[in-house]
Amino acid sequence: MIKMNGFMGEFLGTMILIVLGAGSGAGLNLNKTYAKGQNWLFVSLAWGLAVTMGVYVAGMLGSDGHLNPAVTIGFAAFGFFPWSQVLPYLLGQFLGAFIGAALVIIQFTPHFKATTNEAEGNSVGIFATRPAIKAPFFNFLSELITTFVFVFILLNLGNFTEGLKPFIVGMLIAVIGMGLGTTTGFAINPARDWGPRLAYTILPVPNKGGAEWSYSWVPMVGPLAGGLIAAGLEVLVN
Amino acid sequence: MIKMNGFMGEFLGTMILIVLGAGSGAGLNLNKTYAKGQNWLFVSLAWGLAVTMGVYVAGMLGSDGHLNPAVTIGFAAFGFFPWSQVLPYLLGQFLGAFIGAALVIIQFTPHFKATTNEAEGNSVGIFATRPAIKAPFFNFLSELITTFVFVFILLNLGNFTEGLKPFIVGMLIAVIGMGLGTTTGFAINPARDWGPRLAYTILPVPNKGGAEWSYSWVPMVGPLAGGLIAAGLEVLVN
Amino acid sequence: MIKMNGFMGEFLGTMILIVLGAGSGAGLNLNKTYAKGQNWLFVSLAWGLAVTMGVYVAGMLGSDGHLNPAVTIGFAAFGFFPWSQVLPYLLGQFLGAFIGAALVIIQFTPHFKATTNEAEGNSVGIFATRPAIKAPFFNFLSELITTFVFVFILLNLGNFTEGLKPFIVGMLIAVIGMGLGTTTGFAINPARDWGPRLAYTILPVPNKGGAEWSYSWVPMVGPLAGGLIAAGLEVLVN
Amino acid sequence: MIKMNGFMGEFLGTMILIVLGAGSGAGLNLNKTYAKGQNWLFVSLAWGLAVTMGVYVAGMLGSDGHLNPAVTIGFAAFGFFPWSQVLPYLLGQFLGAFIGAALVIIQFTPHFKATTNEAEGNSVGIFATRPAIKAPFFNFLSELITTFVFVFILLNLGNFTEGLKPFIVGMLIAVIGMGLGTTTGFAINPARDWGPRLAYTILPVPNKGGAEWSYSWVPMVGPLAGGLIAAGLEVLVN
Repeated sequence: MIKMNGFMGEFLGTMILIVLGAGSGAGLNLNKTYAKGQNWLFVSLAWGLAVTMGVYVAGMLGSDGHLNPAVTIGFAAFGFFPWSQVLPYLLGQFLGAFIGAALVIIQFTPHFKATTNEAEGNSVGIFATRPAIKAPFFNFLSELITTFVFVFILLNLGNFTEGLKPFIVGMLIAVIGMGLGTTTGFAINPARDWGPRLAYTILPVPNKGGAEWSYSWVPMVGPLAGGLIAAGLEVLVN
Repeated sequence: MIKMNGFMGEFLGTMILIVLGAGSGAGLNLNKTYAKGQNWLFVSLAWGLAVTMGVYVAGMLGSDGHLNPAVTIGFAAFGFFPWSQVLPYLLGQFLGAFIGAALVIIQFTPHFKATTNEAEGNSVGIFATRPAIKAPFFNFLSELITTFVFVFILLNLGNFTEGLKPFIVGMLIAVIGMGLGTTTGFAINPARDWGPRLAYTILPVPNKGGAEWSYSWVPMVGPLAGGLIAAGLEVLVN
Repeated sequence: MIKMNGFMGEFLGTMILIVLGAGSGAGLNLNKTYAKGQNWLFVSLAWGLAVTMGVYVAGMLGSDGHLNPAVTIGFAAFGFFPWSQVLPYLLGQFLGAFIGAALVIIQFTPHFKATTNEAEGNSVGIFATRPAIKAPFFNFLSELITTFVFVFILLNLGNFTEGLKPFIVGMLIAVIGMGLGTTTGFAINPARDWGPRLAYTILPVPNKGGAEWSYSWVPMVGPLAGGLIAAGLEVLVN
Repeated sequence: MIKMNGFMGEFLGTMILIVLGAGSGAGLNLNKTYAKGQNWLFVSLAWGLAVTMGVYVAGMLGSDGHLNPAVTIGFAAFGFFPWSQVLPYLLGQFLGAFIGAALVIIQFTPHFKATTNEAEGNSVGIFATRPAIKAPFFNFLSELITTFVFVFILLNLGNFTEGLKPFIVGMLIAVIGMGLGTTTGFAINPARDWGPRLAYTILPVPNKGGAEWSYSWVPMVGPLAGGLIAAGLEVLVN
């Protein structure tokens, strides 16, 4: 009974989401990788397909594949998900994100060593989101709006033939990134931000810079608020 | 009965189409976003997947997911759609496009403030289409041809397994953009152009420029003509 | 009985293939379009999705959606397609390609006028294929190998759920372009090359250059040979 | 009985994988091709869709479409695949990769001739993987982690409607490349590396450089280790 009420699916699914997503950020930001300087289309598609793969794996291991506390809590608050499972889901999400980030650190160790210009903040940006323009209130609004749009669409995708839905959810993440993610880097998921941010804080990373915890309330509170509003609207329109 | 004869689906579906599509334009055109200067592949895929997501949501909320008056009117004129539903559909489409554009203004406020070179017209180009070369007759022909090809294909996609069609419709939009959208920016949809253009005109936008209403007849008349011709040809070949 | 033994499907399907595919080439090559200077990923995806849409439309109008004489003749030669239908198919393919190219000329007229450096051959390259390095024997081999790989995969895609196959065929075209199309521009289809080349030759195009008919045997003979070999191998391995 | 216990499917499927994948590398690295200098998104999508097409073909010709000894051996070691078929599978994989590489040499002969700066190692990099930063232990770890993530996801994709799975497997390869492939060029497959490396070594290639066999243990041992760990974990969590 190792699947433990959804924990295992959320844990390994979120680990896969982060190892692939944050890995794409490492390829983008670190020196001498083959993807150095790739563009936002690359970022959006990589995170989108990373979610796709995480959702497939979570589904096979017995969870619903939220991989995201803003989804789990928003759904629970309005009756789309049982509160009794919220704790193992959240635990799996944050732990999986942490372990996924740890794997990225190992995978890219020579490239962290080769990236010494941490003044630019490239290194923390692999793990945690950073606003393109620092403006706390609008950054918060941005995460709220982005997550609201994401979760409301997620709730209204409808039915799918076998095996198609996780791909479409990944394309949803990709277009959320292309359309609305260019202001704050679309956390839209507290676990995706805090798990790797914590890993970056406490694990040894060559040429490490600050973990910018002062900004971290935005990718926590914004997504939670957006997810709640989306689930509330869903009740309203149905 | 909040879904109101298709209004709600067209309203929220078009809102999603515009918040994601125009949002991608904002990322492209405004200063300091993470997608500044992205290319046409980005634009085409973003608008394509924005349509995909709008169609999913519209379908769940009880409309056919036209999200486009050129489709609704073209279909109605040749018996593919009941005239009795045309009004709520059009209302939902224009209103949804307006609200979607309003969300983009909020989402990107710090970036509008940081973009002071409005002489270039980047700002209106986020919301409304602009021709790459100003040539009214050919611009009109361009929107007519592009919408004709789009609607004729749309009418001939055939049947799909559950959940697949909205993705394919999005890919249709993407390839329409890549193949024919590079002359006028492919409005192919009067609501997609006039709704956000109106929002840009009457809502407060930092560093706002002119809304270029003198061009707006093209993305209104061209798509309507193209949609009618496509639906007419469809009757002819069947 | 307007569908005429497959003619109508091949005609309108190939028209759509060319208007979107050659249209993407026009966006790439002509001055002042929104896609000026786009890269090979753009080209490959545009042609791929152009085929996807052509195949959907052809299927709805009662043909098999070959859109390609190398497929039709290769299939017929080894019993995968009845010889009795070959003539209407070929007629539809070449005529559709011609009309599709004519639409591209209209669509991009202001941009043809703005592109005066025809010395570079950009203009003919929108309509017909050109080798990256002129080397007739290897160019021929290249078209043969590329078409062989394309048709052999096409014959071995297997069964699909409703509506999926045309998308996958488009992705096949895209990866054929990415993998093997970078030497000769992957005609892999005599109609796709000769139809638009003829349109470019006889229709009025601003700033027109030579139509390079001396090269045209390659995109005719290479694809036919490759398609025949692929269909022959298919018989052998089954 | 030409399909020979899975040999034929693995042989032709891997041939297709390599002719398209290594072909995209040739387009990227050789002078005067139409894809010269394309980016990592191009590489990832090309290899992804190359796998997709190889898997379709392998499936039609009677094999499971592993196309990869790390999959075949990892699966066999933990009971997901019969040992009795391992030998014909491996044989087909290495031989198919060799022949696919030979086709790439023919296809791009004029471009090999035009690429005389082999000091840069572009030429061998078309066929075999090379680390972005030479660091044997971390390169090995990198291949191990990447293959582990790949194979573990592959084992947990679940069920699919008819014809969808090979596309999703291709998207898996693409996101593996985007997320984790930017350090060593993601061999994740001993046949994909050694088959073409051998072809490059013994076949005549204009302007040939060294085949870098001293590095080749990494793309052999790393993927095998990663595949075994993934299959082992799969047993553990089920």
